[in-house]
Amino acid sequence: MTEKGVTTIPGGGVTSAKGFFAGATCAGLKTRGNDKLDLGIVYSETSCVGAGVFTTNTVVSPGVTLTRERVSSGHIRGVVANSGCANACVGPQGLTDAREMAALAAARLGVGEDEVLVASTGIIGVELPMSLIRGAVDSIEVSPDGGPLFARAIMTTDSHPKEAAVSFEIDGTTCTIGAVAKGVGMIHPNMATLLCFIATDAAVEPGFLREALVGTMNVSLNMVTIDGDSSTNDSAVVLANGAAGNAPIRAETSEVELFQRALTAVCTPLTKMVAKDGEGATKLIEVTVEEAATVEDARRAAKTVASSLLVKAAVHGGDPNWGRVAMALGRSGARVQEETLSLYMNEICVFDVGAPIPFFKEAIVASMQKSEIKIRASLGVGEHSATAWGCDLTEEYVRFNSEYTT
Amino acid sequence: MTEKGVTTIPGGGVTSAKGFFAGATCAGLKTRGNDKLDLGIVYSETSCVGAGVFTTNTVVSPGVTLTRERVSSGHIRGVVANSGCANACVGPQGLTDAREMAALAAARLGVGEDEVLVASTGIIGVELPMSLIRGAVDSIEVSPDGGPLFARAIMTTDSHPKEAAVSFEIDGTTCTIGAVAKGVGMIHPNMATLLCFIATDAAVEPGFLREALVGTMNVSLNMVTIDGDSSTNDSAVVLANGAAGNAPIRAETSEVELFQRALTAVCTPLTKMVAKDGEGATKLIEVTVEEAATVEDARRAAKTVASSLLVKAAVHGGDPNWGRVAMALGRSGARVQEETLSLYMNEICVFDVGAPIPFFKEAIVASMQKSEIKIRASLGVGEHSATAWGCDLTEEYVRFNSEYTT
Repeated sequence: MTEKGVTTIPGGGVTSAKGFFAGATCAGLKTRGNDKLDLGIVYSETSCVGAGVFTTNTVVSPGVTLTRERVSSGHIRGVVANSGCANACVGPQGLTDAREMAALAAARLGVGEDEVLVASTGIIGVELPMSLIRGAVDSIEVSPDGGPLFARAIMTTDSHPKEAAVSFEIDGTTCTIGAVAKGVGMIHPNMATLLCFIATDAAVEPGFLREALVGTMNVSLNMVTIDGDSSTNDSAVVLANGAAGNAPIRAETSEVELFQRALTAVCTPLTKMVAKDGEGATKLIEVTVEEAATVEDARRAAKTVASSLLVKAAVHGGDPNWGRVAMALGRSGARVQEETLSLYMNEICVFDVGAPIPFFKEAIVASMQKSEIKIRASLGVGEHSATAWGCDLTEEYVRFNSEYTT
Repeated sequence: MTEKGVTTIPGGGVTSAKGFFAGATCAGLKTRGNDKLDLGIVYSETSCVGAGVFTTNTVVSPGVTLTRERVSSGHIRGVVANSGCANACVGPQGLTDAREMAALAAARLGVGEDEVLVASTGIIGVELPMSLIRGAVDSIEVSPDGGPLFARAIMTTDSHPKEAAVSFEIDGTTCTIGAVAKGVGMIHPNMATLLCFIATDAAVEPGFLREALVGTMNVSLNMVTIDGDSSTNDSAVVLANGAAGNAPIRAETSEVELFQRALTAVCTPLTKMVAKDGEGATKLIEVTVEEAATVEDARRAAKTVASSLLVKAAVHGGDPNWGRVAMALGRSGARVQEETLSLYMNEICVFDVGAPIPFFKEAIVASMQKSEIKIRASLGVGEHSATAWGCDLTEEYVRFNSEYTT
């Protein structure tokens, strides 16, 4: 996807923007998963303004607590993150360990300990093995090419790393936004957590940075749903170091829309990667709701359809079972009325303004074999729209999540 | 379960109360499912007061619309119900057909057509085959022993009929409540729907009857969750014909609590049967939340745990994965704080007032092999409690729901 004025950087990631470095090591925290790297650092040569959005779960990792406190200080130099252990539900020791992990990384980087953010993902209810972390932090070498190493270090049961980057111009100055993500909500059981780190060399005024992050999350990672569960550790953080040299983007300037588009252009492909990589998933489901009474209604309706087990199972079976879509819309809480509702499966109309139509079933069944399934609902009660992403529900999901043992 | 003053009637059902008759036939509507009977009638010799609670889905079957209109008229004589076709999402024809089905049953019974309620369950989006129904209604013979036939006629993919009955005494007069239920929320895909019909010979003042039904539903069938989906056709209806001869129970009388207990005593075993019969389920999950700030919090928290895919998958695998329970509680919207939280799996404490404890894992794993799993959470922030029921998530669930074709 290339938005107007925004150029995708093939192979780009969290170190694509000027002045950002990253690296990772194997501390021995991750006893399962698809990569041995399990402890990583993102570093900025100069001080960053930052913004973050975090899980709404009331049971949170102390890493989230610490990062939430620090992220908007205006002088962030780095992030340290581990996989294998969520550092959640472990009592007061959790905050002590999160602080020490940040301090260890700060010492390694030669920056202040409150200038480092911290994130964890992995098993809930066991303490961080600090002796392993203490021994490993000093072996991390950060470099401008280290983005892919960091991307691997935060993976748990992800089948592949998830990175994206874009560039755009402000008054002749090229700015870059790079990002890395992992996980799929709480789909990966105790190895929970959606993490997303975004690094830009654009100079951005802190208040607007937060507004832009919320705006992008509302249409990207907040619209992904795999199993309805949400983790104790979900975090998305953006850092802006200003190394591009542009005049700072602030709420009143004309560059606001361009920056928002660029941020969304980085996060949307990550969102789809996350949805498609859902545990056991074989298909990406994209649900678009149009003509909703409010944007909240559109989002709620789209997410409800994308998270309905029966819709997910139908998609898995290649079944154009639109009755399940109508049911999910009706229970979503959004304003939905049968008389004005139309439904499309892969753009083939199956229910037209309140009436089922005799669609060519074989054609839809054939189109349901694709690896990306589009469901579109037109509610006919307003002019707002939203898109949500999810994946199909498979026997493999159940097998994985019931065989996994604590 | 026998509540104080309430006696369970073994083998009882919807015709256990005086003056209620039922019967069923095979109209040819149900092309799959575990029983051929698919069209049934419940009949009362005398006029009934009634009350109903219905799906909150905004897409509803016209049968629900009609029954909602009629149920509180004060002169109900019967219910006609079919399985195989939900009569939902079919445009204006749906209401026409629902009215005709009620009229056909009324003619068969010799009562007024607005004295008959109607309910449907089955595939969404196809019209009721009225020619089959027209030919079949007259072959239904109602009798005092017909409860089990009716119970079979409303089954879709239920593996067995679900019936219960209790008796209690008011001033020396024995009163009876009998009931029948089917389905498991929307778990049974297009063959959707939870239906529950309750028939009592107690004389009950209509206003209190509705209040009592809502009170019982809030602690029984509204606390069952299988897959989070809710159908277009869910209905629970209670009819009271007064044949027992007691002085009518009304809101101010001392019999109110006894009647409420008796109604709950009928509906609780039906609730467990419904949960345990969830598609592909092998285990019943009972989640009790205690010490919640409000009763709404307790209910929300209990239902969220019982409906968490990850909790359900863990139970399936016999995995005492309490981190998933803590996660589900934290995202429930209820007031939950880690510091005061305690968790018990099959009554073995695994997390004690904010700290994980070194439990004897093998003992819990062994206990998780049982067919009924109890999860208890003490929130430590209040004095309200609630219980929810669900079932485990199995590969069989996914297989069934993805192989089922429209």
